Amino acid sequence: MKNYFSSPFKLGVLGGGQLGRMLLAETQKFDVYTAILDKSLEAPCAKKCDEFHQGDLLDFDTVYNFGKKVDLLTIEIENVNIDALDKLEKEGLTIYPKPSNLRVIQNKASQKKFYKDNNIPTADFNHYAYLEELKHSYENDIIDFPLVWKAARFGYDGNGVKVVRTIDDLESLPAGECITESLIPFKNELAVIVARNTNGESTTYPVVEMEFHPEANQVEYVICPARINDTVAKKAQEIAIKVADAFDFVGLLAVEMFQTENDEILVNEVAPRTHNSGHYSIEASYTNQFEQHVRSILNLPLGNTESKVAGIMVNLVGAEGYTGNVFYENLEDILRIDGVTPHIYGKKTTKPFRKMGHVTIVHEDVNKAREIAQQVKETVKVISK
Amino acid sequence: MKNYFSSPFKLGVLGGGQLGRMLLAETQKFDVYTAILDKSLEAPCAKKCDEFHQGDLLDFDTVYNFGKKVDLLTIEIENVNIDALDKLEKEGLTIYPKPSNLRVIQNKASQKKFYKDNNIPTADFNHYAYLEELKHSYENDIIDFPLVWKAARFGYDGNGVKVVRTIDDLESLPAGECITESLIPFKNELAVIVARNTNGESTTYPVVEMEFHPEANQVEYVICPARINDTVAKKAQEIAIKVADAFDFVGLLAVEMFQTENDEILVNEVAPRTHNSGHYSIEASYTNQFEQHVRSILNLPLGNTESKVAGIMVNLVGAEGYTGNVFYENLEDILRIDGVTPHIYGKKTTKPFRKMGHVTIVHEDVNKAREIAQQVKETVKVISK
Repeated sequence: MKNYFSSPFKLGVLGGGQLGRMLLAETQKFDVYTAILDKSLEAPCAKKCDEFHQGDLLDFDTVYNFGKKVDLLTIEIENVNIDALDKLEKEGLTIYPKPSNLRVIQNKASQKKFYKDNNIPTADFNHYAYLEELKHSYENDIIDFPLVWKAARFGYDGNGVKVVRTIDDLESLPAGECITESLIPFKNELAVIVARNTNGESTTYPVVEMEFHPEANQVEYVICPARINDTVAKKAQEIAIKVADAFDFVGLLAVEMFQTENDEILVNEVAPRTHNSGHYSIEASYTNQFEQHVRSILNLPLGNTESKVAGIMVNLVGAEGYTGNVFYENLEDILRIDGVTPHIYGKKTTKPFRKMGHVTIVHEDVNKAREIAQQVKETVKVISK
Repeated sequence: MKNYFSSPFKLGVLGGGQLGRMLLAETQKFDVYTAILDKSLEAPCAKKCDEFHQGDLLDFDTVYNFGKKVDLLTIEIENVNIDALDKLEKEGLTIYPKPSNLRVIQNKASQKKFYKDNNIPTADFNHYAYLEELKHSYENDIIDFPLVWKAARFGYDGNGVKVVRTIDDLESLPAGECITESLIPFKNELAVIVARNTNGESTTYPVVEMEFHPEANQVEYVICPARINDTVAKKAQEIAIKVADAFDFVGLLAVEMFQTENDEILVNEVAPRTHNSGHYSIEASYTNQFEQHVRSILNLPLGNTESKVAGIMVNLVGAEGYTGNVFYENLEDILRIDGVTPHIYGKKTTKPFRKMGHVTIVHEDVNKAREIAQQVKETVKVISK
């Protein structure tokens, strides 16, 4: 096996946001030389990596030229130029996750089709090349409200997802390619992170439960372990592994799922990378998701995904009504509480609902952790000054 | 309270070794802008901090000029120019730990005198301005072998400590200022890390037990919790707090102690900083020692020092007979074991007994962890290639 540790080996990462920043803590631990490409000199990773390159992740030449400088390429965001990755891969560069997987996942229509083709349970959907096609279907009574509209590409953190209840809602949507699903009543939104290395070894993290902000459609609390019964948890993990196996995936795959009223599990979507739903693992797990990502793409043995204690993550997002230089109000107050750890991502300016950091709450008792999480949420405010 | 998070505040750290590197993971988490001074461009911190300055930590002008650039100054190594710190402090810079504390601690004779003056239990000692004085005492039958000789200054990791059994041993010692102690038989070497902030709030970590390499006098295993009875543990923690209070210390203070055959606790020496005996805390504790150091010097509330699970640290030191480009043999094999996390410090060249990294083993059962630690120790080898 190649010795990555303290060798001239260079890992390249597309994207320099908070996920990259937390990944860097792990590549530092393993002493893996890490180069990062991001469009902004003020990206959270810019000053934290061994080598920073500024450039557009969607530009062919930029991604291609960056790829030529590294020994192994990975991503921290999936919206990157896949054509460049295809060419790099053909020329012999190892890229995890694989470009072919990213291509399927980058487009929600092809992602949904992939689930259907592989007998992975997911909500039925319709696919439209343009919004006009969707309007046409509605006008011809082929579909009806309410429905869930999703942009086929470049959705992120709930952007690109809308519940459509009226013709006005429909009129306000962007014009491009999209899918629709019927609005399924569900009990819980769950997620399972699967790690899979090139040997095909895979591990799953415990099932987590996600509580969403009702308006912004962003995760507010991620709770590990999910407060669901063992049968449902086992089913969710099995489906997550089935998805990863179907992709022949290498790296970390976060599988988001709905638990329906009658305890069916439906795959909602996947993220082919470290994920917000796994941030709790830094404090709670034997092996955190960022270390596990490093292990999986370097084809090292995968670590233990069990938790030492229960963990809950609260996102720190910009408060409504504040745009400008960020100020974390009352952060000191939450540091007084046992088991509370803030992670500040180092973004200089806040705006409403921008992810600025997160706080992890760990406790032996998940219900106690949930109480503290509420208290944390009500105490800290991300404002501008 | 000053808001350190994402403000233009700049933390300065004297020293850019592995302790600084692990500290940087925590200042990153809290988004505290961190500047580092170290003599080597290849220091473990050089590429990992917001701002790196190259220079000699023992040079007055270098330390003074670096101090003028930062808002708060701390250390990761105690061998720094204290005169420069005194001047900076007089001119209004906040420095933790305080220069007056560092001055006492930097010299083992003044450190021992401090314990005697403050009724802190420690082994009796003699102080000699030169080795010649010590020889003279021996020749005049004032002292006898065996005795423990310690250089008064610049000892590190067991360098500067020798057991003297013969006149040849005595002849081979360096000429400078030193102390001697009688050789006390002890059951255990223990350590307690105390954190104390500017409000005088203090917390202690659990007592750890240190197993030393018989020849190199370097710690081989640090075991948390120490396998000692509660009465002894409580006494050790009380004495550690007494030491920190006597110093009116701010920051992290590692207090190394002997447990004698009759369960007396004697303070051996202190380190005014994050310490090898606290590395286990990254994986095992609710708040790791590096985060706690940041909390204490910024006068933030101190975190919970309890452990989630038992933790054992194994030092990865250069194997005898190898000097040159480092290679970590069999590192992959230990990654197969649950609860094992290597930390590689990023030093390019190894030499016998050089600290190159450490491995933490966590497990619910400390005895099981100790077995795995042995296995880790016997598997990994730090060699050159």
